[in-house]
Amino acid sequence: MLEPAERDRLVVVLVAPRNPLNIGAAARAMSNFGFTGLRVVNPYEVAFREARSAVGAGHVLARAEEFGSLADAVADCGLVVGTAGITLREPKHPVRRLELGARLIRQALARERVALLFGSEKFGLSNEDLSHCHWLLHIPTRPEHESMNLGQAVAVCLYELVRDSREARRRPGGPRKATAGDMERLTELLLEALARSGYVNPRTASSTRLKTRRLVRRLNLSARDAQILMGMLRQILWRLERGSDVQDGDSAGTVVPA
Amino acid sequence: MLEPAERDRLVVVLVAPRNPLNIGAAARAMSNFGFTGLRVVNPYEVAFREARSAVGAGHVLARAEEFGSLADAVADCGLVVGTAGITLREPKHPVRRLELGARLIRQALARERVALLFGSEKFGLSNEDLSHCHWLLHIPTRPEHESMNLGQAVAVCLYELVRDSREARRRPGGPRKATAGDMERLTELLLEALARSGYVNPRTASSTRLKTRRLVRRLNLSARDAQILMGMLRQILWRLERGSDVQDGDSAGTVVPA
Repeated sequence: MLEPAERDRLVVVLVAPRNPLNIGAAARAMSNFGFTGLRVVNPYEVAFREARSAVGAGHVLARAEEFGSLADAVADCGLVVGTAGITLREPKHPVRRLELGARLIRQALARERVALLFGSEKFGLSNEDLSHCHWLLHIPTRPEHESMNLGQAVAVCLYELVRDSREARRRPGGPRKATAGDMERLTELLLEALARSGYVNPRTASSTRLKTRRLVRRLNLSARDAQILMGMLRQILWRLERGSDVQDGDSAGTVVPA
Repeated sequence: MLEPAERDRLVVVLVAPRNPLNIGAAARAMSNFGFTGLRVVNPYEVAFREARSAVGAGHVLARAEEFGSLADAVADCGLVVGTAGITLREPKHPVRRLELGARLIRQALARERVALLFGSEKFGLSNEDLSHCHWLLHIPTRPEHESMNLGQAVAVCLYELVRDSREARRRPGGPRKATAGDMERLTELLLEALARSGYVNPRTASSTRLKTRRLVRRLNLSARDAQILMGMLRQILWRLERGSDVQDGDSAGTVVPA
């Protein structure tokens, strides 16, 4: 998990972005995942202006800094990481998959500012841009369709930085399970309704009882759902006892929960 | 890691999407991460048509299926998972963080079709939509800005499904390191250049030698970079020996690698 001070040390650098929607999407993902430092190098001016003035642009875009060169944009950073496809060019840098790269970035953020570079929508990062990088980050996309949309690439990288691997190992929680007593009461109610409905053949009654008990156990019921089902069955039993001549709207007073 | 057959069992369901760019972005992320099953429920017709006819829409959109109801869209699925913010509504379902939820989805994909539902850009999934779900998936965004862009949410969820946790534990590889012998040769060349330049004070020469040796060790050089630096120093030494009266273009024949 990243501390707030560590998140603030990450700088997302968009190099020569052309599309205001992508600049906005990058800023939105940053806000979603709690990052604030956005820097833009040589943006297409109209796009940057439009993105900043868009409805809901928010605090990340308002605070975004503009630079005339990549060297200036990363000058205060201790680690500079580029994002790039790996099939397009002979990699002259170490290339690390996002799962590993994010771990190394988190370690660096504990002590220094880290720049994460994204190239323009059309051309990615140039060899000149990449020469400023210590290493490259590779999102594990299919080689046949490697190039991601800019806003989506930013979102995926930032998610990996904030994801908590302990969460993945957690046992799935859930509502309190029905007890054996609940399930036996439910089984009895269901059997009674089945008997009154003529479902149970007297010759096979004891086998039906066992089948029904096993069925109820397989339902994997929560305590609350067991109560709801018992309420439904009590209402059905009440109607079965009275016969079908009872007027609609009449009831035993048992309200079926919504 | 998901097998191809398992990826093919995942169905991404967009409920009532309004924006062709978002439909296209969802399909693009699916293609990036190797998923093929896209289903669309009650889309805004113009948007769906526009998305399908967009340049580069690709095979995922071409094969996308349209449904008139969510029940029909998920009828053949053994597990139905909704994506939703958790602060907006009282959750009536178990809510699982993406890290854990993706693990459970991967387990289910080993045996059955799984639907992953995304609501419309404006309203998300309705309570009616959510009642079709077994549980809800929560992307760990900031509570203050929880709502993600549709295409970005799809990309982040699919990335988590394909990410490989073994990769995160891998030791970062890299180029072969320079040997102690390389570094000592480099140190000698540097000291010689420093001596010829008048940097070395004869009284402190032995201390300078130790400082320089330590400095070179701290550079963390690859074998290749050590060779490049030695080539550079040999060229500098050659020029220092000849003096500055040598014509430009003349050279010892050592070519500095690019």
